[in-house]
Amino acid sequence: MSIKDNHLVIMAGGIGSRFWPMSTPQHPKQFVDVLGCGRTLLQLTVDRFKGICPTENVWIVTSASYFDIVREQLPELPVSNILLEPCRRNTAPCIAYVSWRIKKLNPKANIVVSPSDHIVMNVAEFGRVISSSLGFASETDAIITLGMKPTRPETGYGYIQANLGTSSARNVELFPVDSFREKPDLETAKKYIAQNNFFWNSGIFVWNVSTIVNAFRVYEPSIASIFEGMMDVMGTDKEQQTINEKFPECPNISVDYAILEKADEIFVFPADFGWSDLGTWGSLRENSQRDEFGNALIGPRIDVYETQNCMIHTVGEKRVVVQGLDGYIVAEENGTLLICKLSEEQRIKQFSEE
Amino acid sequence: MSIKDNHLVIMAGGIGSRFWPMSTPQHPKQFVDVLGCGRTLLQLTVDRFKGICPTENVWIVTSASYFDIVREQLPELPVSNILLEPCRRNTAPCIAYVSWRIKKLNPKANIVVSPSDHIVMNVAEFGRVISSSLGFASETDAIITLGMKPTRPETGYGYIQANLGTSSARNVELFPVDSFREKPDLETAKKYIAQNNFFWNSGIFVWNVSTIVNAFRVYEPSIASIFEGMMDVMGTDKEQQTINEKFPECPNISVDYAILEKADEIFVFPADFGWSDLGTWGSLRENSQRDEFGNALIGPRIDVYETQNCMIHTVGEKRVVVQGLDGYIVAEENGTLLICKLSEEQRIKQFSEE
Repeated sequence: MSIKDNHLVIMAGGIGSRFWPMSTPQHPKQFVDVLGCGRTLLQLTVDRFKGICPTENVWIVTSASYFDIVREQLPELPVSNILLEPCRRNTAPCIAYVSWRIKKLNPKANIVVSPSDHIVMNVAEFGRVISSSLGFASETDAIITLGMKPTRPETGYGYIQANLGTSSARNVELFPVDSFREKPDLETAKKYIAQNNFFWNSGIFVWNVSTIVNAFRVYEPSIASIFEGMMDVMGTDKEQQTINEKFPECPNISVDYAILEKADEIFVFPADFGWSDLGTWGSLRENSQRDEFGNALIGPRIDVYETQNCMIHTVGEKRVVVQGLDGYIVAEENGTLLICKLSEEQRIKQFSEE
Repeated sequence: MSIKDNHLVIMAGGIGSRFWPMSTPQHPKQFVDVLGCGRTLLQLTVDRFKGICPTENVWIVTSASYFDIVREQLPELPVSNILLEPCRRNTAPCIAYVSWRIKKLNPKANIVVSPSDHIVMNVAEFGRVISSSLGFASETDAIITLGMKPTRPETGYGYIQANLGTSSARNVELFPVDSFREKPDLETAKKYIAQNNFFWNSGIFVWNVSTIVNAFRVYEPSIASIFEGMMDVMGTDKEQQTINEKFPECPNISVDYAILEKADEIFVFPADFGWSDLGTWGSLRENSQRDEFGNALIGPRIDVYETQNCMIHTVGEKRVVVQGLDGYIVAEENGTLLICKLSEEQRIKQFSEE
């Protein structure tokens, strides 16, 4: 495996509605310094592939409306590596587009597909898992999913059921997938984690470009034929115009549903590198450094008095003083202030829309 | 009495520390649209004297650092009517300065002195009380204080004890003052309001310019001599420079202590025109329109859910969503967000300083 063949595809088209008001459709959470560390989630995602994928092999697939933000946040990327979807069609068309694009450039490419808005605490272990998976993908026709060892009966994630009895002969950390399971209810989730062969579906995938292109041809030919028919214009001046015309014809479908649940030779790499999809304010609190009273305080100047178990987040030069709160989200961003009990955070999307 | 002789003096040098973060030393509350009505407290103060004092007779005494704000908020005022104190010396030097200034212009002037940051609900009754007091002051040497009929045993105000047995023969609404009382403790305040002859000291005074100038000469000659010695430069190019040199020599003393507590012929006009000094966030809540759950919501777009007894205040285009709070101040202004129990609001000054 040559590092020059390693490509990274970052899907950065989400709108992060559960993180309102920090995340807005105009400026969703992948473009925000959520952790208050000076780097946005998108930048952190690129950062953790340093040494694994060369910069010229990093691809961002996003909405046309986020082009300027991506350019600003990743100035080191070739501008032609930013692929713009004219409309939202879920992950399958997004991955197909970039796969055919990469295939034209390098038919031997190995690809990691990653969300843009997750966090990883143990970047070294993450790098080891990714490199190992890329090595496997370069030598096989495997579709590899990264399965996160679950720590709680989470109902917000899909699960991957592994056949732990028969690891791959080439890589003893990779196991065949028995089934993919949709987000379960609490009872089912508890059953899953009582066993040891269920893993959270992280949305991180590794494969060879031929493998995924062939899988589309077999399992989702309507999408495959759209991009097959665009091979001539890929990488030319006509690419964007043709994409704008043809991309909307794709069905709205996830790669999980279109490919993973149907294909053979699907493997899961059970891993543990401090992953979170940062889906909610509560998960940000859990994944942030907290003070002795359980407060996660992210912002340049936050003072708390008689306050505990709160998630307080602000960007910019805002000063915040909070007295006497327990178990609240306080978020001040994008011209909006939100104060809401953490236990009610599932209502935030509704608040943002009213 | 001619309306041309009526002068209004507005003391606008306060820093409003209890209303932080809406009120800051750089932009204190008299310059803020506290009520969310489109007019600042200073503008509302000027507004309610329309028809009583001509615009050219309105004087603002304030700190030099607020000159630009006053100009912007009261563009109709002659710029020479904005008097600038080079330092804070409490109310006696402030009132002395403007009194000598007015005396040079019009020795027959009648003067109302008013704070800049109070509110009045019943402006018609206010106008009647002020006009009646001005008429009395124009014909006598009386020093008139407006006494507010107390509605609760407030410990944050000074009280005026009236001799209700003997009203003035010229004006049956005016009564001699028996004594001024400093801010009482709760027990004492309860005793005061159990009687009917104790009134809150509103800080609104009415007198003839000769009366107050003579009172300074008699009771506070050190201040009188400073301004007496400046009569030549008053209203000339040299006024500000001389004030900058001489004003700091004045003792730091309130007009209550320097004059009112010593002088004879002090009268109180017991009045009831929906007055509040808006001293605290709690008093703003009490003086604002509230929803059926007791929330005072001042701002362009505030949505509340399961929230009661809160004072929520923001200026500008900020959107605010609050869920699940009871009895809190939420104020977002001047780059600062404050969330604090109303019951703890006496700590706000401390929060602002830390």
